[in-house]
Amino acid sequence: LYHITCRGHGGAVLPAFCAVAGEDGVSLGTAVREQHGRDESVHSCRPPDVVVWPRSVEEVSALAKICHRHRLPIVPFGTGTGLEGGVGAVKGGVCFSLRKMDRVLDLHQEDFDVTVEPGVTRKALNSYLRDTGLWFPVDPGADASLCGMAATSASGTNAVRYGTMRENVLNLEVVLADGTVLHTAGEGRRPRKTSAGYNLTNLFVGSEGTLGVLTKATLRLYGIPELMVSTVCSFPSVQAAVDSTVQVLQAGIPIARIEFLDDVMMDACNRFSGLSYAVSPTLFLEFHGSEKSLEEQVTITEDITRGNGGSDFSWAQDAETRGQLWKARHDAWYAALALRPGCKAYATDVCVPISLLPHIIVETKKDLTENRLTGPIAGHVGDGNFHCLMVLDPDDPDEVQRVHQFTERLARRALSLNGTCTGEHGVGLGKRALLQEEVGPLAIDVMRRLKATLDPENLMNPGKIL
Amino acid sequence: LYHITCRGHGGAVLPAFCAVAGEDGVSLGTAVREQHGRDESVHSCRPPDVVVWPRSVEEVSALAKICHRHRLPIVPFGTGTGLEGGVGAVKGGVCFSLRKMDRVLDLHQEDFDVTVEPGVTRKALNSYLRDTGLWFPVDPGADASLCGMAATSASGTNAVRYGTMRENVLNLEVVLADGTVLHTAGEGRRPRKTSAGYNLTNLFVGSEGTLGVLTKATLRLYGIPELMVSTVCSFPSVQAAVDSTVQVLQAGIPIARIEFLDDVMMDACNRFSGLSYAVSPTLFLEFHGSEKSLEEQVTITEDITRGNGGSDFSWAQDAETRGQLWKARHDAWYAALALRPGCKAYATDVCVPISLLPHIIVETKKDLTENRLTGPIAGHVGDGNFHCLMVLDPDDPDEVQRVHQFTERLARRALSLNGTCTGEHGVGLGKRALLQEEVGPLAIDVMRRLKATLDPENLMNPGKIL
Repeated sequence: LYHITCRGHGGAVLPAFCAVAGEDGVSLGTAVREQHGRDESVHSCRPPDVVVWPRSVEEVSALAKICHRHRLPIVPFGTGTGLEGGVGAVKGGVCFSLRKMDRVLDLHQEDFDVTVEPGVTRKALNSYLRDTGLWFPVDPGADASLCGMAATSASGTNAVRYGTMRENVLNLEVVLADGTVLHTAGEGRRPRKTSAGYNLTNLFVGSEGTLGVLTKATLRLYGIPELMVSTVCSFPSVQAAVDSTVQVLQAGIPIARIEFLDDVMMDACNRFSGLSYAVSPTLFLEFHGSEKSLEEQVTITEDITRGNGGSDFSWAQDAETRGQLWKARHDAWYAALALRPGCKAYATDVCVPISLLPHIIVETKKDLTENRLTGPIAGHVGDGNFHCLMVLDPDDPDEVQRVHQFTERLARRALSLNGTCTGEHGVGLGKRALLQEEVGPLAIDVMRRLKATLDPENLMNPGKIL
Repeated sequence: LYHITCRGHGGAVLPAFCAVAGEDGVSLGTAVREQHGRDESVHSCRPPDVVVWPRSVEEVSALAKICHRHRLPIVPFGTGTGLEGGVGAVKGGVCFSLRKMDRVLDLHQEDFDVTVEPGVTRKALNSYLRDTGLWFPVDPGADASLCGMAATSASGTNAVRYGTMRENVLNLEVVLADGTVLHTAGEGRRPRKTSAGYNLTNLFVGSEGTLGVLTKATLRLYGIPELMVSTVCSFPSVQAAVDSTVQVLQAGIPIARIEFLDDVMMDACNRFSGLSYAVSPTLFLEFHGSEKSLEEQVTITEDITRGNGGSDFSWAQDAETRGQLWKARHDAWYAALALRPGCKAYATDVCVPISLLPHIIVETKKDLTENRLTGPIAGHVGDGNFHCLMVLDPDDPDEVQRVHQFTERLARRALSLNGTCTGEHGVGLGKRALLQEEVGPLAIDVMRRLKATLDPENLMNPGKIL
């Protein structure tokens, strides 16, 4: 047996199947860097004492029991692509890297469901499904693990049509803090709907590893649409772009994606990708369906956008041209970074009722200018959700401070408009104080009591959410 | 002050705004009969000690505090249209009838959301919305209160397209067992998506009054479709009808309703409503959309159903003809009752993965015949959810016993096929033992711990779910 001693926590001994730093070709340094890839500019790196790579739920359970006995914090780790510091080990302890559990299990094509282990990413699942005519549409941008996406209640560009993780997880296998194995909807169950008892599945979706380690997720799948058409349209104002969005939704157009980029973002994308889009508020739209239905969707949408002063559509149907058209949107992160070479980026995340989007975006752009900050805006406008891609020099403490204050003001602006401080990135480390303002002391108290019920020793990803 | 003494619970005194039995034109007898209207054939009537009609959340809170102080059970009551005995006062106590809180609040047309008090029914809301171009599509059949629908996680015929209550509640105001007032997503918040902390909203959706009294619900609304087309199609077998359903979903047809009626049900409907449909497995379908998209949806669906041996479509577009076409489906409950005049009906409720529907329906029909039971079948086949409308003589103890045993066998058959013992009616009194089999001892333990955390004295609708 190969034993590992966990420093700083009374010398707990972990069994052989816990590959540790340096073993198995993955160094602790790599794992830690992985954990802090995208958000290190905002949330400082806090490495765990040890990293383990369990290969099965039995191993996760056995490890959790050891951690429970020795009061070691457990930090679940999927792909480390989260944006609010959710995988930082603020109290040390054991990082459970779940990448070795990467099997796609139990695909049921006729029932439109599949079960995956926590190391399976969304792109890996969609590759696996390629010949089935099915796909999993939730797309947060990064190639995140699906259980990580469930843990953070992720969504992204397709949510306006297909929903977020909340609507698309049917069942979860979870290792609780004491190492017991829970099936939130009962083992192996996969009805498309149920009203059997408390909705434990949706208690764990969005719990960010603070209530248990997700070791399996059963997901809804969808038929791949016969055709997809993408269009781009620029507008004279933010208001005109948002009005178009509301009218498209009111007209019942089953739009698959409707993404907003502001003038600063469009300028950055033009420069980065050698494009020549108008430098003005712009919508990127995607329609899914059959040929006739697409024709009609596009016609009605074009009428609506023209009525709001929108430009003629640039549009594309084949995969390659669609790819080119969406290049600006897909490269937004890198285009933003390229605005200031050598800097880091941090994506904010707020969501408000759609009609209040023009107001908050105009106010926010003013705030950015006044505070000399670089923050091009991109948003899932159909949901009222948008991000400022803050580009900052992490070695400039004054700028770091200004970005921090700006993101807090932005979140409070969203709260003052009946919105949320996080539409899809989660609370993690960064938004705990804002969460308290958002839901109020009683809801926080209820959340704390739920947490204490399921994890009385506060071992599961401590210091996050609450 | 007008005070009420609650018998049998230490003589607790309730304040003046608690209208009691006999006052205000509503007798206790009426309230109790209301409570036990549809399910008295299965769940025996257990009246509360007193009924109160609060008019505001402040009154609900004040009443709950009195109940908490005197350890009086609280039984929330909406319209009494639930089917699993959820409003029976098995331990006596105070029935909170919420019908006097019937205001529609805070309609936001551009944001597609509205907030309602607990006395607002789905039909009342849709009447209120009539001139706005919006509607709330979740339709369990009965004109239930929307907060009651949230409490039982209701769904119905439109769920295949628009989801269940789980997907359509954005926020809830809840009076907890100690009388405190919780806003599950924060007071007044209504973003279309959020990942801010634990999903308290979906913990209360489906909690059947056992965690708190719902006093407000913020709901998603949808644009009324430009056109609706309904069709009816009969099939040579259950398998052919279900295969058609799966293929329609695989083809990405955004079908709004796809309802299955078996041969027995069709025969009952023909007799009751003077119709002449084929007495065979039948699908009732409804398509929502624009003219062109409907043409296409209908054409593709007709190709699919013909390929499975389905009859030509009877179809209808104007509201009146659609009403006639759907009459058979809408009158199913009364048509079933008319099979045996003087009898009562009880609707079972299971849900399985769609591909397993033919198997379970064929087995279930055999079971009904073998046990000399009348139970025509109607189902929301797009979700894998179906009901047997059991018609029984409540004065025949042998038949009551056979129905009881049949419904248990049916639920266990669903469980053996990875399904659920309740797709939409909830657990209530009737399915507590089955819930344990469905989710297993650890999930039951977790549910019990959550209940104990929020309601340590077990005052909220005691004896239900767990």
